[in-house]
Amino acid sequence: MLNDFIREVQPAIDAELQFVVAHPKLGSYPGLESILRYHLGWEMNGEKAVDQGKRIRPLLVLLAATAVSGSWRQALPAAAAVELLHNFSLIHDDIEDCGELRRGRETVWKKWGQALAINAGDTLFTLSFDALKRLKDTVSLDAAYRSLQVLIETCVQLTGGQHLDISFEKERILSIDSYWTMIAGKTAALLSASLRMGAIAGGASVDREYHLGQFGHFLGLSFQVWDDWLGIWGNANQTGKSAESDLVLGKKTLPILFALERGGMFAERWLAGPIQAQDVMEVSALLVDEGAQSFTEEQAERLNQQAIQSLQAAKCKTDGGRLLEELALSLLKRNK
Amino acid sequence: MLNDFIREVQPAIDAELQFVVAHPKLGSYPGLESILRYHLGWEMNGEKAVDQGKRIRPLLVLLAATAVSGSWRQALPAAAAVELLHNFSLIHDDIEDCGELRRGRETVWKKWGQALAINAGDTLFTLSFDALKRLKDTVSLDAAYRSLQVLIETCVQLTGGQHLDISFEKERILSIDSYWTMIAGKTAALLSASLRMGAIAGGASVDREYHLGQFGHFLGLSFQVWDDWLGIWGNANQTGKSAESDLVLGKKTLPILFALERGGMFAERWLAGPIQAQDVMEVSALLVDEGAQSFTEEQAERLNQQAIQSLQAAKCKTDGGRLLEELALSLLKRNK
Repeated sequence: MLNDFIREVQPAIDAELQFVVAHPKLGSYPGLESILRYHLGWEMNGEKAVDQGKRIRPLLVLLAATAVSGSWRQALPAAAAVELLHNFSLIHDDIEDCGELRRGRETVWKKWGQALAINAGDTLFTLSFDALKRLKDTVSLDAAYRSLQVLIETCVQLTGGQHLDISFEKERILSIDSYWTMIAGKTAALLSASLRMGAIAGGASVDREYHLGQFGHFLGLSFQVWDDWLGIWGNANQTGKSAESDLVLGKKTLPILFALERGGMFAERWLAGPIQAQDVMEVSALLVDEGAQSFTEEQAERLNQQAIQSLQAAKCKTDGGRLLEELALSLLKRNK
Repeated sequence: MLNDFIREVQPAIDAELQFVVAHPKLGSYPGLESILRYHLGWEMNGEKAVDQGKRIRPLLVLLAATAVSGSWRQALPAAAAVELLHNFSLIHDDIEDCGELRRGRETVWKKWGQALAINAGDTLFTLSFDALKRLKDTVSLDAAYRSLQVLIETCVQLTGGQHLDISFEKERILSIDSYWTMIAGKTAALLSASLRMGAIAGGASVDREYHLGQFGHFLGLSFQVWDDWLGIWGNANQTGKSAESDLVLGKKTLPILFALERGGMFAERWLAGPIQAQDVMEVSALLVDEGAQSFTEEQAERLNQQAIQSLQAAKCKTDGGRLLEELALSLLKRNK
C-alpha cells in the first residue's frame, strides 16, 4: 500500500523539482544549471544510468500532509524544498569530507573543482527556499511563510551539526552529549522539518505539527544510531578484513564513544593509534564485551519507542497516518 | 547631511545585525557563532582594531525606505539581510579565489580551514533569510514575503555571476557581452535588491520599486566599470612597477576585453603571455592608444546617466530622495 503511494507521487515530486530548477534567472547561466542537473541525477554526461537517491524526505512531507487529512499535491512545493536542501548539503559535505563518489558517480567538486562546486551548492540552497514560493498558491501565504521559518531554523541546525562534525574529526575522544547534539542537527533536523512542513501544508494544528516534528526527530536519531551499529557489525564490516569498518575509518560513532567513556581495554586500544583492517574482528569483540553493542541497541530501541509514541500523539487516524506508520516501521525495522 | 543620516542609523544597523546573529538555535554551536562574529568584525581574537566594511548596502536599504516616505527603522530587518548576504558571499568568494586577507585580517578559511569556512558561510546565508522575518512585525507579512522573493532572485543572480567569473578565469579571452552578464549578477544584483527591499519596506508602489531597483542596477554596473578603470589607471597602478595592476594580475576587466575584441597590438601582447610589472607603463599606454581608456570612461558615463535617470523616474521628492541622490553622486564622482 505504501508502494502504491510511492508510485503515485514520485513522478509529481520529480516534476516539481524540475519546475523549481528551471528558474527563469538560472537560464542565463547554462553551465551552472548543468551542474545542478547532473547532481540531481537528470543529466547523464555520458555516465551510466543514474541513481537519484531515495527521495525519502519529500515522501515524508507528502505523507505528513495526507496524514493530517490534507492533499499531498498541496504539499509538493515543500517536498521539493526539503529534497533540494538535502541535495545542497550533499554538495558541500562532499567538499568538506573530500568525498569523491556519490551515488556511484563523481561528486560535483571532483568533476568541476571546488570553487564551482561551492558556488553551485549555494545556488541549490537558494532554490530550496525558492521552491516554497508555490505554497502560497497551493495552500496560503501564511503556510508558505511558516514553512519558510521551519526551513531556516533547520538550516541553522544542519550547519550547526556539520560544524560539530568537522570540528570533532580532529579530536580523538568526544562526549556522548556532543554526539547527540551533532546528530540532532546533522541528521534529525531535516527529517523533523519534512514532517512539520507536510503538516503545515496539510492544514494541521500547531500541536499536531509539533508531534509530527518530534516523530521525525526521533526517527532521524534512531536511523543514525542504527547506521552506527551497521558501521561496525553490519555484514560487510564483519568479515575481519574490512577496511570499510568505522573502526578502521576512525569515525566517532555511538558504540565507540560509549566504550571510550567507559575507559576499558577498547579505549586503551583506540587511544594507542589507528586500528588496522586485520584487527577489526578482535576490536569489535572488545566493544561487545564492554557493553557497547547492547548500549547501542538499547538506544536505538528507546528512540524507536519515542518515535512511535510521538506519531501516536499526533493522532492521525487516516489512511495517510497508517502509511506514515508503515514507512516508519520499514525504516526502523533495520533495528530488529 | 548624508553624514548625519549615516551617524544616526549606523548603531541601529549594527544592533539589528547583532540581534539576527544571536539566533537562539545558534547558541548550541558557540564555535560556529564565534567564526561569524569574527568575520563580521565583532570578535577581536587578539587581532588589531577591526574594519567592519563600509556597510553601503544596508545604507541603501534605509535610504530607499525614507526616499519613498517610509521610516528607516521599519526597513532595518531588510538592511540586515542584505549585509549578511554580502558577508556570506565574501566568505565563499575568499575560498573560491584563495584570498588570504580581508579587511586587513586573515580570511575565515585561512584561519579555520576550508571545511569550517564553507559551512560557516552557509550559516550566514541562512541568517540573511532569517533577518527578513522581523519585517513581518515592522511592516507586514506581505512585505516580508515580497522581500524574500527579491532576496532569492538576487541569490540566483549572485551565484550565477560568480559561476561565470570562476569559469572565465580559465579563458584567456572573453566577450564583452559575457562581461556585462557577469557583473550584473556579481556586483549589480545585490545593490539593486537593496534599493528594492528598502522601497518595499517603505511602502512603495511596484512601479517605484522597479525604478529604484534599476537605479541600484546601473549604480552597481557603473561602480564596477570605474573599479576596472582604477585597476589599470588608478594612482597605485600607474607607477610603472606595480604588481597590483590588473594587467599583471591577468584580470579580464572591461578595458582589457575591449582591446582584445579590437584585436590590435595590445591583443597580440596579451595573448603572447603574462604581463610583467616592469611592462605595465608600456602596455597601459597601448590600451590608451587603442581607445580602451576612452571606451571605459564612456561606458561609466553612460551608466551614470542611466542610474540618475532611473532615480529621477522613481520621483522621490523627499529628504530621503535627496540623500539617496547625494550618496549616488558621491559614489559616482569617482568617475570624474
